[in-house]
Amino acid sequence: MNFKIEEMIELLERTPETLKQLLSGLSDGWVLSNEGEGTWNALEVVGHLIEAEKVNWIPRVKMILTKGESETFPDFDRFAHLQQIQGKTMDDLLNEFKQVRNESLTDLKTLITIHTDYELKGTHPVYGSVKLSELLSTWAVHDLTHITQITRVMAKRYRGDVGSWINYLSILK
Amino acid sequence: MNFKIEEMIELLERTPETLKQLLSGLSDGWVLSNEGEGTWNALEVVGHLIEAEKVNWIPRVKMILTKGESETFPDFDRFAHLQQIQGKTMDDLLNEFKQVRNESLTDLKTLITIHTDYELKGTHPVYGSVKLSELLSTWAVHDLTHITQITRVMAKRYRGDVGSWINYLSILK
Repeated sequence: MNFKIEEMIELLERTPETLKQLLSGLSDGWVLSNEGEGTWNALEVVGHLIEAEKVNWIPRVKMILTKGESETFPDFDRFAHLQQIQGKTMDDLLNEFKQVRNESLTDLKTLITIHTDYELKGTHPVYGSVKLSELLSTWAVHDLTHITQITRVMAKRYRGDVGSWINYLSILK
Repeated sequence: MNFKIEEMIELLERTPETLKQLLSGLSDGWVLSNEGEGTWNALEVVGHLIEAEKVNWIPRVKMILTKGESETFPDFDRFAHLQQIQGKTMDDLLNEFKQVRNESLTDLKTLITIHTDYELKGTHPVYGSVKLSELLSTWAVHDLTHITQITRVMAKRYRGDVGSWINYLSILK
């Protein structure tokens, strides 16, 4: 087990500014590019991160700490953000993500103490019994997954432009 | 073809600061983690980006512009950086990458004019005839590939920590 709360928080703290440096001011060609029908562009991925922040991570941490396994987590609507982002710019979304992430971290640091038992369990609607440490580890991996997704989607935009180099750029396959 | 020089430069400009926000100050557990023997950790990936900057991108652009297909690009040693990074910290490498990238961009903006023909060709040691537009597109995709690699490697560190969520985190597979 590699999970450590301090190291997991280090990652969560860095994601908003990492995405801001990568995406703020970038041309629409990059931020509106996707991997085909039904897939998300960078704007939509940031919208999803905001939605997860609002309804998923801290609410589930609180449920584990206060209700244990007695109540099932509400389902997470992985498409709700597609409505929420209507009319917003990338900078709107990056700022909003930074704000909700800061709120989450403030909450997390209040909820977690040196006495917290990370083996405490909650009930996931699909997976059943899950541990607090697993929820927190997933939160960090979820950030990394979506940074990966954004850079992969953007890379694929140049799939037809790299010529023979496509042979060594495995990301394009 | 999606390649546009201005948009490609937008990406190159953002990579050093993106990596700095992601990696600076992060615990060794994150930056020294790799995907197994013979694979690179985040520190080594940044070292590779520096090496490519010094010996690969701008030198090849110059060869295309001045020699065309008459001379073959020198081979790029994809392992040279493993020596170069000895004794350096992540912050050393992030600062060095920012500096060499800035130098490259200054060079590029001098070399490229509104009259530049992106169909101009050079000779790659393995692929043979390659176009300037393909080299420049590959440079941008190479950045995105290695950001993706870093976030994937870091995510895998928590492979054993996410419990049942591993089923929906495709990055861990």
